[in-house]
Amino acid sequence: MNLTKPLEARGGIIGEGREPLICTPLVARTRQALALELAEVQSLRPDLVEWRADFFEGIADAAEVLDVARQLRSDAGDIPLLFTVRSRREGGQPIALDDAHVASLCEAVCKSRAVDFVDFEMSAPAAHIAQVRAACRSSETRLVLSFHDFKATPTAGELFAKFRHAQDLGGDVAKVAVMPATPEDVLTLLAATQKASRELGIPLISISMGAQGALTRMAGWMFGSSVTFAAGQGSSAPGQVPVEDLRTVLAVLQKVLAPK
Amino acid sequence: MNLTKPLEARGGIIGEGREPLICTPLVARTRQALALELAEVQSLRPDLVEWRADFFEGIADAAEVLDVARQLRSDAGDIPLLFTVRSRREGGQPIALDDAHVASLCEAVCKSRAVDFVDFEMSAPAAHIAQVRAACRSSETRLVLSFHDFKATPTAGELFAKFRHAQDLGGDVAKVAVMPATPEDVLTLLAATQKASRELGIPLISISMGAQGALTRMAGWMFGSSVTFAAGQGSSAPGQVPVEDLRTVLAVLQKVLAPK
Repeated sequence: MNLTKPLEARGGIIGEGREPLICTPLVARTRQALALELAEVQSLRPDLVEWRADFFEGIADAAEVLDVARQLRSDAGDIPLLFTVRSRREGGQPIALDDAHVASLCEAVCKSRAVDFVDFEMSAPAAHIAQVRAACRSSETRLVLSFHDFKATPTAGELFAKFRHAQDLGGDVAKVAVMPATPEDVLTLLAATQKASRELGIPLISISMGAQGALTRMAGWMFGSSVTFAAGQGSSAPGQVPVEDLRTVLAVLQKVLAPK
Repeated sequence: MNLTKPLEARGGIIGEGREPLICTPLVARTRQALALELAEVQSLRPDLVEWRADFFEGIADAAEVLDVARQLRSDAGDIPLLFTVRSRREGGQPIALDDAHVASLCEAVCKSRAVDFVDFEMSAPAAHIAQVRAACRSSETRLVLSFHDFKATPTAGELFAKFRHAQDLGGDVAKVAVMPATPEDVLTLLAATQKASRELGIPLISISMGAQGALTRMAGWMFGSSVTFAAGQGSSAPGQVPVEDLRTVLAVLQKVLAPK
């Protein structure tokens, strides 16, 4: 239907034109639990799997992280992988790494070629963004530049500026996730997404979080959001719905938009 | 959840707090087909049934219309009935009645006490609105004042003014249904609904029509629209989804908003 821009990975377009792409997070704390969680998640046939490595107890051991990344790559088969170390200030778990170490870890994960996408926060220092971007470019890893606000929803203008900033910084994908306080905030996020979808060149991921924003996880693609995060074994953010529920809603919306 | 204002009819609140209320239209052309359509629709357990009498072949015969209305009342049991003669200029069927005759027919239907709600277009002459409003008041029939635009979506300000105009004219319910040309138009309709929900005292019904607007039929209640129209045996407007599909989507949204 081309309401969203496609994502590329592993030498092709992800999802063969499906809209939206479904990304399921891995949030296990141990290596063993991650392997089990991936197996569970694979049965849900997501289009992408995100390893939220800030949940991993071994996050401070770079060699261990690289080893787990390679194992996930091996186990995941053809499913593209997204590697994310969400910072505490943008809603992630508390970890023992400082920003510079996170950037270096992302660089090392790129170089390992174990993952297809790396999420990096656009609020990071410019030098760290440049470091991760260079590592992405040289390893053909795609860079998702992200912004999260778990407290509030900025204005439509500010939200659009975040999407544009991600593109200006050389991101391959722009991701914006914010918390609504009112139903209007949900509409603001969707309107900013639609404007960015029309005016920018890169694929977008946008989310209004929490129960109030859950609608955007189901219908954000109609306003240009290429990917929706849905809960597999565990959810990584408030408002995520189980993959099965998401697919049920998508089937109804898609039937209306493209009747047989 | 109280995202919408309740509708009253038949001495109580319709739907025992369900949001949104589901209204299924009857669009059969003959008396016999209407009886069959109602039986079919009843099996779907809608909260309201709308008789779109402009589809009825006997619309020009007032006695016949009153007789069918009484029969529907008798057959519908406890389901509240909405009587609507949609004009050609607002998307209805071509009929042999002029505006004055439609107003008189609505007045007569009120007086028959066969229905619980009458839909009347707020674009009608003031004298006709006054005539139907008086008939509603004296018969305890609720007046839905409606506005439809099958060509476009007015601005948010214009849409809000329609809702407010319905209240100012003495409507018990305000209904606005418009056609989107872009995804932004869908958001405009929802934003105007939310503003009207906050600022006005009467229940609202709002719809962005067509495939593009179908989302509003599923999620408009989250922005203050009390009723959604869903197809039973036949649909009466573009974008209506079958009742079963609607309920599937509502169940997912409601689970997110009010988890057990």
